[in-house]
Amino acid sequence: MRDLREILNPKSVELIGNSEVKEEVGIGKPEVFHSVQRNLGMFSGEVYITDLSKDEVVGGELQVYVLPKEELVEAMERGVSSGCEGVIVLSSAKGYEEEVLEIVSKEGVRLLGPNSVMGVINTENKLNTTFPEEISPKPGSISVVSQSGGVGATLLERILSRDLGISKFIWLGNKLDIDEVDALEYLGEDASTREIGVYLEDTKRGRELMQVVEDLAREKRVFFLIGGSSEAGARAAQTHTSALAGNYKIFRSAIEQSQGIVLDTLDELFDVLYVSQMCPIPRRKEVDIVTNVGGPGILASDLLNSLGVPLSRDRENPRDLIADADYKRYLNEIRGDVLTLVIVGFESTTFSQKDLDNLIDCLRGKPVVLLLLGNFESRRDVIYFQSMTRACLGIRNFLRWFLAKNSGNS
Amino acid sequence: MRDLREILNPKSVELIGNSEVKEEVGIGKPEVFHSVQRNLGMFSGEVYITDLSKDEVVGGELQVYVLPKEELVEAMERGVSSGCEGVIVLSSAKGYEEEVLEIVSKEGVRLLGPNSVMGVINTENKLNTTFPEEISPKPGSISVVSQSGGVGATLLERILSRDLGISKFIWLGNKLDIDEVDALEYLGEDASTREIGVYLEDTKRGRELMQVVEDLAREKRVFFLIGGSSEAGARAAQTHTSALAGNYKIFRSAIEQSQGIVLDTLDELFDVLYVSQMCPIPRRKEVDIVTNVGGPGILASDLLNSLGVPLSRDRENPRDLIADADYKRYLNEIRGDVLTLVIVGFESTTFSQKDLDNLIDCLRGKPVVLLLLGNFESRRDVIYFQSMTRACLGIRNFLRWFLAKNSGNS
Repeated sequence: MRDLREILNPKSVELIGNSEVKEEVGIGKPEVFHSVQRNLGMFSGEVYITDLSKDEVVGGELQVYVLPKEELVEAMERGVSSGCEGVIVLSSAKGYEEEVLEIVSKEGVRLLGPNSVMGVINTENKLNTTFPEEISPKPGSISVVSQSGGVGATLLERILSRDLGISKFIWLGNKLDIDEVDALEYLGEDASTREIGVYLEDTKRGRELMQVVEDLAREKRVFFLIGGSSEAGARAAQTHTSALAGNYKIFRSAIEQSQGIVLDTLDELFDVLYVSQMCPIPRRKEVDIVTNVGGPGILASDLLNSLGVPLSRDRENPRDLIADADYKRYLNEIRGDVLTLVIVGFESTTFSQKDLDNLIDCLRGKPVVLLLLGNFESRRDVIYFQSMTRACLGIRNFLRWFLAKNSGNS
Repeated sequence: MRDLREILNPKSVELIGNSEVKEEVGIGKPEVFHSVQRNLGMFSGEVYITDLSKDEVVGGELQVYVLPKEELVEAMERGVSSGCEGVIVLSSAKGYEEEVLEIVSKEGVRLLGPNSVMGVINTENKLNTTFPEEISPKPGSISVVSQSGGVGATLLERILSRDLGISKFIWLGNKLDIDEVDALEYLGEDASTREIGVYLEDTKRGRELMQVVEDLAREKRVFFLIGGSSEAGARAAQTHTSALAGNYKIFRSAIEQSQGIVLDTLDELFDVLYVSQMCPIPRRKEVDIVTNVGGPGILASDLLNSLGVPLSRDRENPRDLIADADYKRYLNEIRGDVLTLVIVGFESTTFSQKDLDNLIDCLRGKPVVLLLLGNFESRRDVIYFQSMTRACLGIRNFLRWFLAKNSGNS
């Protein structure tokens, strides 16, 4: 196992950039250097900021490089030999990959990237090498491994906007050294990680990946999204992270054989992490629907049915409370041990914002997914969606994990 | 053709309720009476408010009833014979259907409902019998026909929140008299209607429905959503609007044979109306993708491919502008005559809110769908989504209409 402790748990971190480079394109720009600097300020260990226009390399245990590729190799030659143990290259090293790899190999140092874009987040030691403004992720059970900067960033933004808790984020980039197998092995031993979202465009270690996913799936909830299922997507993946497009179908079925759950869209990947983190474990494989609008109740029944999710048969389902239901009528119909889709209509009903607030107050500890069809203000201590499609897919994908766990497969 | 002019184009409207009924459940409550009163205040013709606890019926050309079912029949007996030409029953008449039908039949008066819930909106004469607070729909090209109060209300809320333009809304309810065939025939002659969204749970006039859809599809864009595809959904539909569940598959294929486009979800129905109203007609059957985040560009290519939407092959597609693209680099890559999915990543890019504002300023008249992956403030003069799934389905469904129109089928 190629360890990631040098990358995620260093005692000190050194950010290496150059505030005077004229770079206008890409991650090597001075703006990115300054933004990462701001987010590193929270780190619980020592932080060194090295601006190569005026400073010498200090020798932090973890070195984070933000430089134009033309300057990168020379800076790394000096920096890596100064005694560091891990390197993250956020910027691109296109055309200089061999030199970069040679430098870290010679010194026996681990490398994340190049083209990692956002690096890592570890909420335990508050290490955060990303550059969005002033974010302070909340500790929690979700970890993410992303080959793509943008996919990981989108997941991060959604996680922050719903106030979910993060354990680790790892942006793999071009995977010259550290890859998905290393990252997943690390997360397998990370006690604070419960659900893992993985975005990949390729793998060069298929067998080892299958093994680590199979091991992980015994203890954790592992959700995959694989880019490049289409010809255009695969071609773009090769430009994007130098991914050698394999056969999507083989890749997908290998992950599924190993008990990883493969999703079809970016929305689904976020939504299942969201539901998984927030939803108590239900006691059955069927769901209830409770609604104050008949038509949407019918449509949700149809959609869940088409997704293979059965409704409970021991009661009326969907349960239509009619347009003037207040929150108490809802509460009477929500069984605390059955995963329940609670649909709240708006314009055609008398259900008020106050009803919603009261309802949410009483949902703690219950496996409920709210579908709000109107202009309600929700709260972030409850699972809620505005899209029926996403609510139903979120339920289906959470149940996929739950069923795999409870059918003797694992 | 059973005309709807009495319902949608009356000279005067009379709202009939009772502010002193003790009803606590359903649309017959005094609160609903008062809310409808408020929205009727905008009507360009004469409005009479008749509170049966103290007033006598006046005899408006269109009468709108909001009463508990026990009071409804007696009130209608007096009201309908006072000289009205059309009746909307917003509230339920469960158990009194025969009496209600007999009253309107005897007088030769058209009836919308009972259980219409929201009645009608006509932006031309500002007739609005709905009860959400202080809405003033903007005139425009979208009309909606909904058997369900809640489905129509959800579409209305979304249309208002995106500032789209409405021509007519017709909530059919239990269809004792006026049904979908009448409503669609009326809309066929409505010059201000261009796209029609229809939600149905059943039909009793299959052949006539097929005929009117076929006629409509020559001139207009007709999008259907059919409730009750599942056993639970069909059972609920029977309770909901007394729909006699037919065979969903037969229903669906009949509409499709008639060139109506059938969608799978409520999100899709709204989204295709949204794209259809706002998107200029493209000149090709393929789409472009322009993005500043590689991974999401790959995933959008994959998703569009799986939905059967081809990417243009005469250029790089998806076109990845990389994380530091500004709005000018986007504009250079947007061809004004090709439907383009423009993906804007956020956290991992340097694209700013100002870039977005500048970009939107330049998109007028171009067939562009924006997918905003971060916390941007968008404007309502551009088509935008936050969900990749919904953006791609919106494009696919709009193209379904476009292709049907441009393949000699109609």
